[in-house]
Amino acid sequence: MKVRILVSFKDSVLDPQGQTVRNALHTLGYDAVQDLRQGKVFEVELAGVDRAAAEKLVPEMASKVLANPIIEKYTWSVIED
Amino acid sequence: MKVRILVSFKDSVLDPQGQTVRNALHTLGYDAVQDLRQGKVFEVELAGVDRAAAEKLVPEMASKVLANPIIEKYTWSVIED
Repeated sequence: MKVRILVSFKDSVLDPQGQTVRNALHTLGYDAVQDLRQGKVFEVELAGVDRAAAEKLVPEMASKVLANPIIEKYTWSVIED
Repeated sequence: MKVRILVSFKDSVLDPQGQTVRNALHTLGYDAVQDLRQGKVFEVELAGVDRAAAEKLVPEMASKVLANPIIEKYTWSVIED
């Protein structure tokens, strides 16, 4: 099965990279962009794992390795069974 | 409205960062991880833009600024109306 994990800064944490991209978009005339936050996405192919096992495994990998729970949050979803 | 844009390397392009993360997960005992690709996610708040305008605006921003179409692909979706 394939899962997608999205990791981004918590809302209370500044995102200078996102601000830079937003400013670049403004400079290019994309004034409709009001806010922009940047994060990371991981697409992970898991072998021999059913949905119940993934419910346990993915949050563990995300909070231990992929995200820093002090300043980052994550969401995940199954994208392929 | 709020849109989410996912940018990742094309499948034909090597992803050394993703390989490093996969190796780290293996080292920690997460052997179920068969493949892992890393990418970027942008969550963009757009003001005064309806869905029809977004259909034009977002692909333009994505292909001009957020992704490098030579080596990267992107997908996007509306996450808040």
